[in-house]
Amino acid sequence: MIMSLTKEHFLKTIGKKIKTLREAKGLSQYALSDESGISRSQIVRLENGDLNCTLATLLVLAETLGVEPKDLLDV
Amino acid sequence: MIMSLTKEHFLKTIGKKIKTLREAKGLSQYALSDESGISRSQIVRLENGDLNCTLATLLVLAETLGVEPKDLLDV
Repeated sequence: MIMSLTKEHFLKTIGKKIKTLREAKGLSQYALSDESGISRSQIVRLENGDLNCTLATLLVLAETLGVEPKDLLDV
Repeated sequence: MIMSLTKEHFLKTIGKKIKTLREAKGLSQYALSDESGISRSQIVRLENGDLNCTLATLLVLAETLGVEPKDLLDV
């Protein structure tokens, strides 16, 4: 049964996943920003579920964190 | 080994997946547009890999097509 996810819940859950993966790699938000080229403020908003980013940003994040893009949506 | 996907390749592959799922459901682009609320021109650009859409748009598309968002990135 595909539970209808609200946009807010969907973004918050992805944000938690990004944070978990970042911390598992021992990266600070600054370090992830440096490695990915995504601004630190965007990373903060992403991890809080406050940024509805694009697929290209998701791809860069996934590659920086060493996972497949779909893994960031495995929520 | 995580192959580094170019943005273009990534978006084109997602577009093909959306088109395959839409056609499997017997939906025209117009019908998918009606059901999802996403404009037909955006659907055309998405399926051609020419639109770097947001996660929220991906969520709406996935729910309309009856799949999980991550399935659209299973490329």
